[in-house]
Amino acid sequence: VNHFADRLIDSIRAVGAPTCVGLDPVLDKLPPELASAGDGPAAILAFCRGVIDGVAGHVAAIKPQSACFERHGAEGVRVLAETCGYARERGLIVLLDAKRGDIGLTAEHYAAAAKAMAADAITVNAYLGPETVTPYLKAGLGIFILIRTSNPDSDAVQSRVLEDGRTVAEMMADTAAAIGRPSIGVHDYSDVGAVVGATKAEDGRALRRRMPHQIFLVPGYGAQGGTADDLRALHDGRAETGGGMLVTASRSVIYAFQGQGGAWRSAVTRAAIKFSTEVRAVVS
Amino acid sequence: VNHFADRLIDSIRAVGAPTCVGLDPVLDKLPPELASAGDGPAAILAFCRGVIDGVAGHVAAIKPQSACFERHGAEGVRVLAETCGYARERGLIVLLDAKRGDIGLTAEHYAAAAKAMAADAITVNAYLGPETVTPYLKAGLGIFILIRTSNPDSDAVQSRVLEDGRTVAEMMADTAAAIGRPSIGVHDYSDVGAVVGATKAEDGRALRRRMPHQIFLVPGYGAQGGTADDLRALHDGRAETGGGMLVTASRSVIYAFQGQGGAWRSAVTRAAIKFSTEVRAVVS
Repeated sequence: VNHFADRLIDSIRAVGAPTCVGLDPVLDKLPPELASAGDGPAAILAFCRGVIDGVAGHVAAIKPQSACFERHGAEGVRVLAETCGYARERGLIVLLDAKRGDIGLTAEHYAAAAKAMAADAITVNAYLGPETVTPYLKAGLGIFILIRTSNPDSDAVQSRVLEDGRTVAEMMADTAAAIGRPSIGVHDYSDVGAVVGATKAEDGRALRRRMPHQIFLVPGYGAQGGTADDLRALHDGRAETGGGMLVTASRSVIYAFQGQGGAWRSAVTRAAIKFSTEVRAVVS
Repeated sequence: VNHFADRLIDSIRAVGAPTCVGLDPVLDKLPPELASAGDGPAAILAFCRGVIDGVAGHVAAIKPQSACFERHGAEGVRVLAETCGYARERGLIVLLDAKRGDIGLTAEHYAAAAKAMAADAITVNAYLGPETVTPYLKAGLGIFILIRTSNPDSDAVQSRVLEDGRTVAEMMADTAAAIGRPSIGVHDYSDVGAVVGATKAEDGRALRRRMPHQIFLVPGYGAQGGTADDLRALHDGRAETGGGMLVTASRSVIYAFQGQGGAWRSAVTRAAIKFSTEVRAVVS
């Protein structure tokens, strides 16, 4: 299977839920036995491997947050690459959450960096224009374009209304749909996906109409306030492909051990199963 | 001097020109004697140190392009950090061109990464909202918000007209001005700057009116087609502070040795002097 979108849908079908775990490791939240296991990056690597072992087979994809690794410098970046490689070995689709956005030549460098990390896809920012996100596709990566992000503050930009009646987010959605047209795979989804927060579901139906072939990467479910109804608003009507969504949860899964007794990996596994079970019930 | 903007203006005054050299190292463009000096990142570090030595004292700042380093993995990131540190030692202001843009918590991690690299400022993307760029300020960095970028394709997003009559770029400009108000230094410039391409100078006067306290980071002069007239359109009328601009040149300076005989460092120095002399003539 060559298309990123096809591989992702296959992975969603294999686990039976369109779910993704966000890997945002922060030193002071690690299980105590790991925090004392070595320097920062070494502890983070041990944690990430443990989380990956804990969630593999229960979620379709993993989404490492580049910033959490970059803050530890070169060694952090080495750990990020190892984490991505290990996740891929364990059969998970790897989405690098890096939100890159730069002109074409520079985008080629970022794409090469993501490819070298064994990422399957990367989140990108298209404020610099549509042509600044296509180099990632040419490099063989899937992309998720930031359309309507889950943070409250995003309204200040993304909800602005253009003179043609579209919001800025809807304009970006039309761009994503257009860029994505040439890369639609056998499952009828494009390698160009869209980031649409569960907390912005009031805009979700309109965005879904504009992007029928986009897989929505959906942050904000659970901890940030997104509900089952919100997911239904983003659903594309196709239960067999997870509704064209990939719902992500981060802290509620990877830090599920906090305040609980027992082995931390088991707590992460239980949280991943609970998350996938909940989402499965909503989308199918 | 605590304000980033004050340090930058002081540096501009010290060299007598509001100029910045973009450091976008690409392996196959390095001087042949360096390309064969070791593995990729080692050759890039030698090149960057040579460019910094060549331009120090002739330009106010240096702007390493993060992507060019990131594509070489962890070792590339180590070289980026060394490059930033060396530039600072040599008295240059360091602008990390990373165009980061993510929600607040994640932005804190990116800010920590930039601080650890000894960057003075970072380029940022505010598509996710105004609050997503303020964490860098809190960390003590200056920021340059992407407003109107020099690539042709940027019109597709940034020139869209809102129902209130502003373009998307003008809306971003108003955001930059508002965020920047609390951090105006003794020279009357804010630690919140703006990226405005010389190739988009037709929009420049309106953007300057909206952003009187922003230092404009101006790519696109020279090689990309920006002219002296374009710089005049972005000028804020204050010759003693370089017109509130920081004009950047990359390839025309760092690869000035190509097709020329003689020592490559001397060619870079000559190109930096020529660049600063030209810009000085326009702004003063």
